[in-house]
Amino acid sequence: MVQVKQILLKDNIQAREPNKDDFIQNTVEVNESNIPDDKVLVRLVDVSVDPYLRGRMSLGKSYIEPFKPNEPILSGCVAKIEKVGKNVTNFAAGDYVAAMLPWQEKAVVSVGKDWVKVDPKMAPLPSFLSLLGMTGLTAFHGLMEIGEPKAGETLVVSAGSGAVGSVVGQIGKILGLRVVGIAGSEDKIKFMVNELKFDAGINYKSPHYKEELAAACPKGVDVYFENVGGEVSDAVWPLLNFKARIPLCGVISAYNKSADIGPRLQIPLLKTSSKMQGFIVFNYADKNPQAIKQLSQWLKEGKIKDKHTVNQGFDKIVPSFLSLFNSNHLGKMVIEISKD
Amino acid sequence: MVQVKQILLKDNIQAREPNKDDFIQNTVEVNESNIPDDKVLVRLVDVSVDPYLRGRMSLGKSYIEPFKPNEPILSGCVAKIEKVGKNVTNFAAGDYVAAMLPWQEKAVVSVGKDWVKVDPKMAPLPSFLSLLGMTGLTAFHGLMEIGEPKAGETLVVSAGSGAVGSVVGQIGKILGLRVVGIAGSEDKIKFMVNELKFDAGINYKSPHYKEELAAACPKGVDVYFENVGGEVSDAVWPLLNFKARIPLCGVISAYNKSADIGPRLQIPLLKTSSKMQGFIVFNYADKNPQAIKQLSQWLKEGKIKDKHTVNQGFDKIVPSFLSLFNSNHLGKMVIEISKD
Repeated sequence: MVQVKQILLKDNIQAREPNKDDFIQNTVEVNESNIPDDKVLVRLVDVSVDPYLRGRMSLGKSYIEPFKPNEPILSGCVAKIEKVGKNVTNFAAGDYVAAMLPWQEKAVVSVGKDWVKVDPKMAPLPSFLSLLGMTGLTAFHGLMEIGEPKAGETLVVSAGSGAVGSVVGQIGKILGLRVVGIAGSEDKIKFMVNELKFDAGINYKSPHYKEELAAACPKGVDVYFENVGGEVSDAVWPLLNFKARIPLCGVISAYNKSADIGPRLQIPLLKTSSKMQGFIVFNYADKNPQAIKQLSQWLKEGKIKDKHTVNQGFDKIVPSFLSLFNSNHLGKMVIEISKD
Repeated sequence: MVQVKQILLKDNIQAREPNKDDFIQNTVEVNESNIPDDKVLVRLVDVSVDPYLRGRMSLGKSYIEPFKPNEPILSGCVAKIEKVGKNVTNFAAGDYVAAMLPWQEKAVVSVGKDWVKVDPKMAPLPSFLSLLGMTGLTAFHGLMEIGEPKAGETLVVSAGSGAVGSVVGQIGKILGLRVVGIAGSEDKIKFMVNELKFDAGINYKSPHYKEELAAACPKGVDVYFENVGGEVSDAVWPLLNFKARIPLCGVISAYNKSADIGPRLQIPLLKTSSKMQGFIVFNYADKNPQAIKQLSQWLKEGKIKDKHTVNQGFDKIVPSFLSLFNSNHLGKMVIEISKD
């Protein structure tokens, strides 16, 4: 028996910002010596926190079931398999996997259908949560399948310095588009322009935000990759070109609100014959192998950067998650739980 | 020389309902005896009025240029060609055409590239403005190209008793969908259910509109054909199924407003991986021949009804147009100007 920490959701969180009191940290016992035949013992190595988890903390119909009170929260993690039950044949002790796992240092769990064995020689382990994992695939599929990017067009991406946006913009540059990133601090703007090589970075907190965005898009906007919503995006609609495409990936400005009121979208979409389409990465799971191949190649060739903000230790999971709504982190937020 | 009536736009109309003082009725002289070599003399037979014309009366960037002050208003018309200039070879005196023409009883005009010769033996002339013309093609292309209807799914159409909506719903029935029409009067509801054979008709003026709409869509909404916008449509968003499609054809509730404020659309589209796409019928012009063939066949087989509300006389053009925003007309509004 070993004592390990776990984090539970205290209760479903309705229209407000979450805080540390919404989570319960427990200690539970894990029986390491007697693994049931069809289960495995995993140890968390890296934990990913993402804004979409906020949605699962609310109640209500969505593309994915809400977390339940007093049950563990799950997120994308890299874990090491320490032991396997007799009937488990597709994984072995010593393997690393990228999987949806509970926030618990060690756990005895069933193998999920969507677990992916990852090779630590191919890329640093946190990359399997970012560029080669959920956020990189989200960026790739959303841009390619819905955004239909064409060289010479203008791509605007909100939260352009974040885990998804930073990849969207870099793919846009590789494909020959003009890329304009939107973010909320000067550090993020510098990161987008200097490190990621976006053509422009616009601070939505500027008093002249609308004018600056318009000036950065002299030929209008052909693709708007939506991560934010609210007033940040309202400034984009008047700039849409004919037949613009809007992959709708996230709406972080609305996750903590009970109602999201603003200009309705029908008129700008109608006037320009534009398309807005919501998606989740799982919709395109059949195309993951090609996407990972392409992203790995760009990473190897130095054409794309995989930026992480890494915090250390299990106790940083909740604060890292909470900071997503107000933080100045760059790229993908990862919490390193254990190292070999 | 002959004296004929014409109607001009007095000035661009900003955010308000148009009224009769926005239009100037003139008398102009037309030289019937001396047609320039590359022009034709046309006589209006039927004039179409449609809500989208309101958009062209405003200023501002859109998919089509605004009408100019003191210039004639154009709309879809059926006209008879009375004389042709020497160099006109594709039309002859006596031909009927469906064309965008000025509101002027007779006119000497150039032949447009998009003029279509119509055969009065094939269908009644007003049908070339409705089912076999712009509104029928709008319904067909929007539903087929963006709505991607599948048998067994639920299709909701707003303004379901109107020129476009009545065709959308009937095509939905032919294809085996459950069809729910939304409209604003009991006469329109009866028309949709009894004459067009929709499965249900919902009155958005009912105090229990939201509940009634939800009850009419027990399996949720797979396709929402959007003609109206505003609160009428806000009631549809909570009913969207996973991967719903929303062809965005018109927003009549917003045409007379300076701002259209309400719940933003990102959250419902994101939660359901749904798509909203604006369009105009011209985007699919290359597919008109097949569409007209299919619609004519359904008309001949009695599977689809082409309902007109016909007003008589040139002086009814403006009142008919104005009534679109408040009227109780059914199907396509047509003004009959002259008969043979």
